[in-house]
Amino acid sequence: MNNNKHPSVQTRAGKSGMPPGTLVHIGTPKSLKSVINATLYNNKEISELHGTGIAEAISLASTANEDANAKFLWINIDGLGDLDVLKQLGEAFAIHPLVLEDISNPNQRPKAEHYENYSFLVLRSCTLTAKHQVESEQVSLILGHNFLITIQEKEGDAFAIISERLRKDNSRLRTNSLDYLAYTILDSIVDGYFAVLEIFGAQLEGIETQIVETPDERSLKNLYRHKRTALELRRAIWPVRELLSNLDRSDSKYVSTGTKIYLRDVYSHVIELIDTLEIYREMLSGLLDVYLSSLSNRLNEVMKVLTVITTIFMPLTFVAGIYGMNFEHMPELKMPLAYPIVLGVMFTIAITMFLYFRRKHWI
Amino acid sequence: MNNNKHPSVQTRAGKSGMPPGTLVHIGTPKSLKSVINATLYNNKEISELHGTGIAEAISLASTANEDANAKFLWINIDGLGDLDVLKQLGEAFAIHPLVLEDISNPNQRPKAEHYENYSFLVLRSCTLTAKHQVESEQVSLILGHNFLITIQEKEGDAFAIISERLRKDNSRLRTNSLDYLAYTILDSIVDGYFAVLEIFGAQLEGIETQIVETPDERSLKNLYRHKRTALELRRAIWPVRELLSNLDRSDSKYVSTGTKIYLRDVYSHVIELIDTLEIYREMLSGLLDVYLSSLSNRLNEVMKVLTVITTIFMPLTFVAGIYGMNFEHMPELKMPLAYPIVLGVMFTIAITMFLYFRRKHWI
Amino acid sequence: MNNNKHPSVQTRAGKSGMPPGTLVHIGTPKSLKSVINATLYNNKEISELHGTGIAEAISLASTANEDANAKFLWINIDGLGDLDVLKQLGEAFAIHPLVLEDISNPNQRPKAEHYENYSFLVLRSCTLTAKHQVESEQVSLILGHNFLITIQEKEGDAFAIISERLRKDNSRLRTNSLDYLAYTILDSIVDGYFAVLEIFGAQLEGIETQIVETPDERSLKNLYRHKRTALELRRAIWPVRELLSNLDRSDSKYVSTGTKIYLRDVYSHVIELIDTLEIYREMLSGLLDVYLSSLSNRLNEVMKVLTVITTIFMPLTFVAGIYGMNFEHMPELKMPLAYPIVLGVMFTIAITMFLYFRRKHWI
Amino acid sequence: MNNNKHPSVQTRAGKSGMPPGTLVHIGTPKSLKSVINATLYNNKEISELHGTGIAEAISLASTANEDANAKFLWINIDGLGDLDVLKQLGEAFAIHPLVLEDISNPNQRPKAEHYENYSFLVLRSCTLTAKHQVESEQVSLILGHNFLITIQEKEGDAFAIISERLRKDNSRLRTNSLDYLAYTILDSIVDGYFAVLEIFGAQLEGIETQIVETPDERSLKNLYRHKRTALELRRAIWPVRELLSNLDRSDSKYVSTGTKIYLRDVYSHVIELIDTLEIYREMLSGLLDVYLSSLSNRLNEVMKVLTVITTIFMPLTFVAGIYGMNFEHMPELKMPLAYPIVLGVMFTIAITMFLYFRRKHWI
Amino acid sequence: MNNNKHPSVQTRAGKSGMPPGTLVHIGTPKSLKSVINATLYNNKEISELHGTGIAEAISLASTANEDANAKFLWINIDGLGDLDVLKQLGEAFAIHPLVLEDISNPNQRPKAEHYENYSFLVLRSCTLTAKHQVESEQVSLILGHNFLITIQEKEGDAFAIISERLRKDNSRLRTNSLDYLAYTILDSIVDGYFAVLEIFGAQLEGIETQIVETPDERSLKNLYRHKRTALELRRAIWPVRELLSNLDRSDSKYVSTGTKIYLRDVYSHVIELIDTLEIYREMLSGLLDVYLSSLSNRLNEVMKVLTVITTIFMPLTFVAGIYGMNFEHMPELKMPLAYPIVLGVMFTIAITMFLYFRRKHWI
Repeated sequence: MNNNKHPSVQTRAGKSGMPPGTLVHIGTPKSLKSVINATLYNNKEISELHGTGIAEAISLASTANEDANAKFLWINIDGLGDLDVLKQLGEAFAIHPLVLEDISNPNQRPKAEHYENYSFLVLRSCTLTAKHQVESEQVSLILGHNFLITIQEKEGDAFAIISERLRKDNSRLRTNSLDYLAYTILDSIVDGYFAVLEIFGAQLEGIETQIVETPDERSLKNLYRHKRTALELRRAIWPVRELLSNLDRSDSKYVSTGTKIYLRDVYSHVIELIDTLEIYREMLSGLLDVYLSSLSNRLNEVMKVLTVITTIFMPLTFVAGIYGMNFEHMPELKMPLAYPIVLGVMFTIAITMFLYFRRKHWI
Repeated sequence: MNNNKHPSVQTRAGKSGMPPGTLVHIGTPKSLKSVINATLYNNKEISELHGTGIAEAISLASTANEDANAKFLWINIDGLGDLDVLKQLGEAFAIHPLVLEDISNPNQRPKAEHYENYSFLVLRSCTLTAKHQVESEQVSLILGHNFLITIQEKEGDAFAIISERLRKDNSRLRTNSLDYLAYTILDSIVDGYFAVLEIFGAQLEGIETQIVETPDERSLKNLYRHKRTALELRRAIWPVRELLSNLDRSDSKYVSTGTKIYLRDVYSHVIELIDTLEIYREMLSGLLDVYLSSLSNRLNEVMKVLTVITTIFMPLTFVAGIYGMNFEHMPELKMPLAYPIVLGVMFTIAITMFLYFRRKHWI
Repeated sequence: MNNNKHPSVQTRAGKSGMPPGTLVHIGTPKSLKSVINATLYNNKEISELHGTGIAEAISLASTANEDANAKFLWINIDGLGDLDVLKQLGEAFAIHPLVLEDISNPNQRPKAEHYENYSFLVLRSCTLTAKHQVESEQVSLILGHNFLITIQEKEGDAFAIISERLRKDNSRLRTNSLDYLAYTILDSIVDGYFAVLEIFGAQLEGIETQIVETPDERSLKNLYRHKRTALELRRAIWPVRELLSNLDRSDSKYVSTGTKIYLRDVYSHVIELIDTLEIYREMLSGLLDVYLSSLSNRLNEVMKVLTVITTIFMPLTFVAGIYGMNFEHMPELKMPLAYPIVLGVMFTIAITMFLYFRRKHWI
Repeated sequence: MNNNKHPSVQTRAGKSGMPPGTLVHIGTPKSLKSVINATLYNNKEISELHGTGIAEAISLASTANEDANAKFLWINIDGLGDLDVLKQLGEAFAIHPLVLEDISNPNQRPKAEHYENYSFLVLRSCTLTAKHQVESEQVSLILGHNFLITIQEKEGDAFAIISERLRKDNSRLRTNSLDYLAYTILDSIVDGYFAVLEIFGAQLEGIETQIVETPDERSLKNLYRHKRTALELRRAIWPVRELLSNLDRSDSKYVSTGTKIYLRDVYSHVIELIDTLEIYREMLSGLLDVYLSSLSNRLNEVMKVLTVITTIFMPLTFVAGIYGMNFEHMPELKMPLAYPIVLGVMFTIAITMFLYFRRKHWI
Repeated sequence: MNNNKHPSVQTRAGKSGMPPGTLVHIGTPKSLKSVINATLYNNKEISELHGTGIAEAISLASTANEDANAKFLWINIDGLGDLDVLKQLGEAFAIHPLVLEDISNPNQRPKAEHYENYSFLVLRSCTLTAKHQVESEQVSLILGHNFLITIQEKEGDAFAIISERLRKDNSRLRTNSLDYLAYTILDSIVDGYFAVLEIFGAQLEGIETQIVETPDERSLKNLYRHKRTALELRRAIWPVRELLSNLDRSDSKYVSTGTKIYLRDVYSHVIELIDTLEIYREMLSGLLDVYLSSLSNRLNEVMKVLTVITTIFMPLTFVAGIYGMNFEHMPELKMPLAYPIVLGVMFTIAITMFLYFRRKHWI
């Protein structure tokens, strides 16, 4: 199990020219370990292997088949660190090299593909970090006759809560087939989108308040940053709609009619998410308009102040300039009341201007 | 009937990880009581139970079936406060857990779904508060062979007027089947959209007048607020189009051909609403353009005032400055007519500037 | 024939809660009288009743049927004032209450609907008032086996020219069936759109010239007003496309293959109209850009004037200010040539600035 | 052959109320003469009649049919001046009145229609005038079993080059059927679009350079003018796509499978043209953004100059004003070094301001 | 092999009027030489001819057919310099003249066409020059029963790496048919797009940083330039989606079901590229908004500086002007403390103004 067998390239482009199905790490792998959990269950029994090796997990598959009572095998791989795990899975379950390549390449567009012995689903799950940043990881599902393999790109088992429910004897998960387990995983991923969108919406309300009340340059950068996040979320969520309607329409033998009703429910949740996202995008563009016109408004305010000040003081300064001229023959200069009269005239000009601008609602 | 059995979560995301079909309150439930009305009728007889318990209402269903004369049962639940009501309904009429979950989750996208024993419709009805604010509630319909269950999210029976019509012996509601009653409910909800859009349109005319005549910063916030309302209305109304065309196309055994003609009429009303809404949205964006360019225009006006004032007084002040210089050898200063001549020159400059700006239509 | 039997509501929303098919006036009825003309014709004979009662017109229908030579009956109702007329028509020709409701509600979206005994078409015809304002009225057509009923919302028979052509013995209208008459009416309505769009286009050219040459605030309001008109026209014309393609595709027994060729021609005219309208809308948005940037350009011009004036006179005034200072020891003040030298310096500064701005193309 | 038989109306709207298929001139006919050329050919022989009468041309049709060796007749009418020509063609080849009307109405939307005895194509060909202005004319094609009629709206035979190629014995035109000739004509029209778009693109590059380097008000009007041209070109080219895919899909007996390969090639050229046009439109809108923000940038530059000048000279002038005051007790005035010190202070202020603005990159 | 036989025209339009299928150079041919490599292989043997003549390459085709062990022939033509090569290929493999014309015309829209004996694919490959500029060349593939012809527009063999892989005995390329080789070529072209988009994205991040931190006029031109590049990339990539789904849907006998799985994988990569490109385009438009409002913000800043300076110094200068007047009777002038008092008043005014503007956050 030597990880060095697999080359590691920095970007997607670095793979160019390699034969299809070549397993390589693209970018820095988000996780270097692969934790493998295997669960073998039917409605009566359940046995689990935690942190097991891939060979042991695979060997359970034959157990599942041999057994008198049909059992289901769920292999959950947590972290894409060890590409040998993928390779061995590929050989054991006769998985197409391209599927393995898609799993190892962590920027797949969500999609569903149906092969002879299994259906392959890939999508992104989104979670929130402590700082309310969106973080996403790729989740791949391989659903076969009596096995379900789930591969999570990053460390940290997002499906622990589902394992928990599986352990309860009376859980609907136990009485249903593997496609219901797959549905439960899809449903929990879609529920994760709701959590992300709710936070996103709350942040948007915050930006809205800020822009409507005290717009500044940071608001715009905030807007732009959220626009990017919205684009990324759309990219993750949009194709899930297709994935689900594909599952519903397809004649995949691994998805039962009963489960399709549940999948249709997830589908309608995804439509709801997409609607919400579109509304957020329209709100973002509306807020940009509000921001831009608040800039214009403030420019208008600034210019009005400038104009008022200039218009009041320019004539006054001019009048003062007149009587600062040094002509010998300026009769006003000698008149005793000239000074107070000129001051009065100046005051009248100032007051008149002031009242004029007040009437024009400039001040 | 202990409401505490059902957990209550603050947001949609809080449900993540629960098994599908779990009934929980999302957000603060808009109504804490559930008023149940049951009506049993055919074209000859009608009997009503007001504010009854759910068990009594359900027991009427068997009566409806036993009876020699086929009777229709309409159970109208007003307020989503008591989730046990839903649970008992679910058991009595064999309703899919996901349908119950959709009913209890008050942000469903309008949709129609067809199950073995019933068709499920969910949509939002919009009403206006006293202050002309849009308020909406979720309405769910479950249409079976001889029962129709309607669930209104909020308190206050929006269908009282329909109950009233049902009581009249010669009403078309009595001579037709339950699908016609369902149509009548859909029709009254769609009529409610017209009321909302008419008020919205009237408000838009008001904003239009304000923006065209005396635009100020509030106009923009008004515009933005209406844009958001338009987005929400679109979200409520758009999917109803799909819902209705789904009902029309579907082979639901609970919708008769005769009623489909009526549903097609509602459909064309919804298209009309969508058209109107799109026109309002285009008007809103047109008004934004008007507002933004009125800002530019006003800036131009302000700048023209500033420029005119500056251009008139700067040369005058300069001339005054010239003769305020203290050079000993300035022959003009000694000339007796210099002062009036300079004043005349200043006056000429001012008049020339004034006429120039008037010709350029700046003043 | 008491008009008071029918309630009258102010808005569409006022109808909410009434049973479907209730005939009420919405808004102030545009016409209070209903002038009824009935024409009975075949390729040999033609007889007309002008301003007749609805009962007489209906009685002609049986005549048309009894006759050995098949005759066609055209009932043209001019003005929606008397809702009893509609009611009697509805009973006589077994018209669905919803159709009657659609006819009486003057804001229908153009559409075609096919019923057992007739096809129902509703659309808007547009005409120009003396002041080149667009005015529109709703036109409804009910096309049955041997009858065609046309209902015009407003007074004033828009189809007089068609009646005229019908009177000529060798007219193609006489040798063809009623569907050809219906086509002729549709064609004349679509021709009316061309007239309106031509005026609209001419007005747009006027606005274009004005905005390109002497843009002012009125131009913008003009633009906005035309944008609204374009939206209304689009609302009237767009759905006619659907109406016509519906007629073409449908298996309505009342539209013959021969007439469909003609309808397809009208269809291609409607597409042409829609294309033109879209071009007008793009022109309007292009003109808005021209207007907005002409505002910016003018602001630039104004600011350049301000800056040139300020930049020229500020240094001059400063120089004058220097020599206006009252220091005792300013050797320049005593020099005989100081004054002309300073004047020369000022002149040089002014000329230099002037040349500098000319080189920067600011003046 | 009296042209006066046909009325002439000024606008499309003037036709309103006339029976369909009425042949009238709309607008000033672009050409008052109709030059008729008829070519009778097969792969062995070819005979041509130049400037012949319509009756002679039509009589060739029977010759074509009678002949032992199948011959093809191409009637090319150059100029829509004489509507009698159309009328006689209509009678001789049994052409539907609506087709004749479409031919005579020179603003048809490009389309293909299939009738019993012929297929009708109408589209616009675009050419460049000497001044690089786009000029377009309507070209109609009627393709029957052994005849092809082409009608060009304006004088000047655009198909002379094709006649030329037809005269060569070994030309592929001669060995193929009339649908190949029709294809050749369509192909040459589409090639004409390429010529127009190439010039358009070159002009766009010119505008781009101008706007990026020395934007002025003319640039914007240029942009707007090109936007209009792009709209017109789109209007001419877009529907040709539909026309060609219609020809490809249709079961028209007059288009052979072999020719369809060629038509598909023209189709892919039209898609290419549409792509190019869309890119040009996006470039135009991008250039508008560049123009508008260059306006803003220049305003910023102007304002910076103004601000720098004001900020430097205002404090200086104020200082000069201080020492221009006439107080008796101003000790500084008597100090011998006061004047040079004040000058020094002023100089320091000016330099400091200058350096400050330089550091802020305003100058 | 005289290149002069083929005319050379400067633009696409120059071809107008030539018969279809005429082989001409459009624009300056990017390469004047044609380097021909031919590879004959099956899973056991491989033989290569480098820089051979076209006749030799063609003669291998018969060898491929004669041989007992089926062999595949790959003719790779590098550079479109010699049109005779195309002509001879056309004759040897019975290729349609239009296909040859498309190959020789280097601005084809990517497409797939299926003929009797071969499928024809044409698309653009994009590479990066040393200066990170996008350069593209047209690649044509003709896939027949046992031959694959690839034609690269420019010199420089982009498929050298694939030839390399082909030489390895155990390569999947050797065990699969020619359609797999064609897939490998398409895959390497699509991988090339990833490389280009990654650089593009990195440049975009750079522009983003620049615009958010220090926006200047170059940023805008940079934005505009990238917008154009994005348009060109879209033009190259978008139609590849169609090309691939065409290959998948088509019943081309030259594409096996096994290879279609691989093609579907390329298809999903193309969708991914298109998604990314759309996100880049939205980012570009978002950055334009950021840039434009940063311009407004900076104008606001400039205007505030101007207004603050003006508002502080205008009243001061006015006060100085007052006491610069030469009235004889100005009692203040004689008061000993007048000068320091006035200075104090001036200082107070300045400080007050300063504090006022600070409170308004202007400074």
